[in-house]
Amino acid sequence: MFESAELGHSIPDREYDRKEPKLREALLKAQYELLENKSFPVIVLIGGVDGAGKGETVNILNEWMDPRFIHTHAFGEMSDEERERPRMWRYWRALPPKGRIGILFGAWHTDPIVNRVAGTTDNAQLELAMEEIVRFERMLVDEGALILKFWFHLSKKVQKKRLQALAADPKTRWRVTDTDWERFKLYNKFRKVSENALRETSTGYAPWFVVEGTDPNYRYLTVGRTLLDALKKRLAGNKPAMSRPAALAEPALDGRNVLSSLDYERTLARKAYNRKLEKYQGELNLLSRHKKFRNKSLIIVMEGVDAAGKGGSIRRVTGALDARHYQVTPIAAPTEEERAQPYLWRFWRHLPRRGRVTIFDRSWYGRVLVERVEKFCSEQDWMRAYHEINDFEEQLVEAGGIVTKFWVTVTKEEQLRRFREREKTPFKSFKITPEDWRNRKKWNDYERAVCDMIERTSNELAPWVLVAANDKFSARIEILKTLCERVEAAL
Amino acid sequence: MFESAELGHSIPDREYDRKEPKLREALLKAQYELLENKSFPVIVLIGGVDGAGKGETVNILNEWMDPRFIHTHAFGEMSDEERERPRMWRYWRALPPKGRIGILFGAWHTDPIVNRVAGTTDNAQLELAMEEIVRFERMLVDEGALILKFWFHLSKKVQKKRLQALAADPKTRWRVTDTDWERFKLYNKFRKVSENALRETSTGYAPWFVVEGTDPNYRYLTVGRTLLDALKKRLAGNKPAMSRPAALAEPALDGRNVLSSLDYERTLARKAYNRKLEKYQGELNLLSRHKKFRNKSLIIVMEGVDAAGKGGSIRRVTGALDARHYQVTPIAAPTEEERAQPYLWRFWRHLPRRGRVTIFDRSWYGRVLVERVEKFCSEQDWMRAYHEINDFEEQLVEAGGIVTKFWVTVTKEEQLRRFREREKTPFKSFKITPEDWRNRKKWNDYERAVCDMIERTSNELAPWVLVAANDKFSARIEILKTLCERVEAAL
Repeated sequence: MFESAELGHSIPDREYDRKEPKLREALLKAQYELLENKSFPVIVLIGGVDGAGKGETVNILNEWMDPRFIHTHAFGEMSDEERERPRMWRYWRALPPKGRIGILFGAWHTDPIVNRVAGTTDNAQLELAMEEIVRFERMLVDEGALILKFWFHLSKKVQKKRLQALAADPKTRWRVTDTDWERFKLYNKFRKVSENALRETSTGYAPWFVVEGTDPNYRYLTVGRTLLDALKKRLAGNKPAMSRPAALAEPALDGRNVLSSLDYERTLARKAYNRKLEKYQGELNLLSRHKKFRNKSLIIVMEGVDAAGKGGSIRRVTGALDARHYQVTPIAAPTEEERAQPYLWRFWRHLPRRGRVTIFDRSWYGRVLVERVEKFCSEQDWMRAYHEINDFEEQLVEAGGIVTKFWVTVTKEEQLRRFREREKTPFKSFKITPEDWRNRKKWNDYERAVCDMIERTSNELAPWVLVAANDKFSARIEILKTLCERVEAAL
Repeated sequence: MFESAELGHSIPDREYDRKEPKLREALLKAQYELLENKSFPVIVLIGGVDGAGKGETVNILNEWMDPRFIHTHAFGEMSDEERERPRMWRYWRALPPKGRIGILFGAWHTDPIVNRVAGTTDNAQLELAMEEIVRFERMLVDEGALILKFWFHLSKKVQKKRLQALAADPKTRWRVTDTDWERFKLYNKFRKVSENALRETSTGYAPWFVVEGTDPNYRYLTVGRTLLDALKKRLAGNKPAMSRPAALAEPALDGRNVLSSLDYERTLARKAYNRKLEKYQGELNLLSRHKKFRNKSLIIVMEGVDAAGKGGSIRRVTGALDARHYQVTPIAAPTEEERAQPYLWRFWRHLPRRGRVTIFDRSWYGRVLVERVEKFCSEQDWMRAYHEINDFEEQLVEAGGIVTKFWVTVTKEEQLRRFREREKTPFKSFKITPEDWRNRKKWNDYERAVCDMIERTSNELAPWVLVAANDKFSARIEILKTLCERVEAAL
């Protein structure tokens, strides 16, 4: 992988001076075209060995193009706000919106490689991390991003020389730290681990470009040229193929499914309800103040058919909590800023810190429900969403999140009754809109989508809880009780 | 101030049970009306003595209304991301958008009061902090916010009893910490300081409501009722009067002004330019890597007439810096999320951490330039912007920011020449739009606005630097040189 980057590539100054002006003009033009049509973001990852000119190259790119529309981010130590959320949160924060170029320095590959070199992880863990990255980049590409990954390489001999030269010059001495020398000692190991990592994460849609870092002229022109070609190709409409959707299972022949099998007849008397409500709210309150909960977070997904009583259930949950510790995030149509990002971005930005509770009133599952049924996105888009969502939730769980998902549902007859009641009650009439009636007409399509969703996204880490809510009292108690059990099990 | 809140107010349960359902129904209705017309945000501040039921009251408000549209924030210790920015940054982050209710626990009043009680500040400092708060709240109200501030009070005797009672009950024991008892010892001092603070910050447009915290029934109904009344009044169209604009000075009778007095004839030869460019870029680079700069941040405002060469100047500045340490923020029309907030919000969100540089390509001064001239906002709005901006920049400077503002300008004839040149050069034609020609027709209006802006916002902390840019070389060098001087002086 690195052989070609140890050949001593170089470009004479005269050639550079001839090629540079044309290249930068073309890059600038491509950048403005990107800015103009705002149809995709460009993500440039920068990695590699120390002293190979990563920083200078990024500076050159900013000089060649319009720096106002380039977002450069370097990832050093995590801030405490970052440490309290899933590992990928800081990268989600730094993603460029459509039309912009984001240059990410030492992004998601760095930690897994560094940790493996330091010996704090083993090969299996490295491989797992690389698989995670492949899935993440696949998702970004499917969401429209153009990803270019540059790895700056130096042979051991050249790196040593270069570090020595930098250290000798008073003007560049600051750039060589003790850590750099410490790391140099690990050159062989670093080379082996990163070769492995690059191999695992170099894909057709997000390839690594290994760039020999010895000669600045060569380095700059190579990176600039590669970026330009990719930009031009993409602007001309060449998109990498999206993930192909696999087929979904057909509905069972006997017409039974997980929803029809629920017990919609169950009831709970008001007196028993009040007693249990107090009991479970008290329990949940105690659990949310448990010492161990400070290292956890609770993420509640509340989905369900219209008029099933999601709002009332949420209020019974928040009633058990201290308002300082929870946030309810109602999900409506995405804002302009959210539309310029991958669809999961708007959920990442609302993730709770440790010790907190976030209730999503509707959620990322909109992708495989309303967006699927109403055809707001393509089949490919919602088909790939299943595993993207599983991935997302896995990351939440790994970071200490307790992910609990409720599908609150009523029978079709009960929904009709509630719609009519809402229309009659002046105070509730704002709750019933023509859209609700429209959705109701597509009952079967939604049911199919729900069954597929449950089949593909209910798992041990983040199971779906199906709540029959013809009787509101028993539904609310079931939700509270489930939350108590889930939190208790996690502490 | 606190006398009326020591009378032992209470409301019998029977009365409470009769009034509560009506109140919550009305509150919920008002909340939905607010959500519907999205014309203003509601900011509820919660402060007061420990054990007076602040938390319970906020929980009740969340129970009575729809918690999905209430944002509750508690401000504890600062995160490191917050510590590296001006004091008010964390509150700006937490402001609710239009249509929503934000409940802020221990917000901007708390630290100044606590610090004064602890004796780390003196009376003058407390007073200064309170004046800052008054101006901040004035700005929020002028921007349309409805602000309600509740102070929960207990007499010393009652507080002691209440803390004891809470501590005795195993279910509530967690709520009384050692800090609470430590603070109780300071009751008299706390009372005195907070009375002072409340007096200073209780204004007609953002009044304090002191609520006796002894009896829950009384407490809940009082807060609910007050909130409801204020909401209803405001929804009915009663807005507090905006700050009255003072008159601006008329242009001088002899037609001379700071812009016409600049030397537009100066030039710099290319050779001298190249030498100086290298010199000052090198200097700026060294300064930006200076140890002391890690506790500073550099905020560059780049404003100027069209075609004056702002973009080129920015590129010469960024050329001196490491791309990992700066961010260029081009300011265009505000996004949907930004329009739902006070106009300064979108600049607060881009403030750099310490050790970083942010270049605003156009800035908050749009308010008193394009928005004034094009009448995008009312005279009252842009008139009050002068002191709001001064306030904002003062906060930046206090937090270690080096604020440097450039007005880059050319003569009217030179602008015409450049417009024509841009039209002729294919590669530059994207830089000239019909809007540029329209703006040019309003040259005099803009000039007037610029002179007013300089007169009212150029000050020692954040002076305007007027750059005659008929000759691009000398303009760029002046900008770089100024930056070096300003940073050097600040280190």
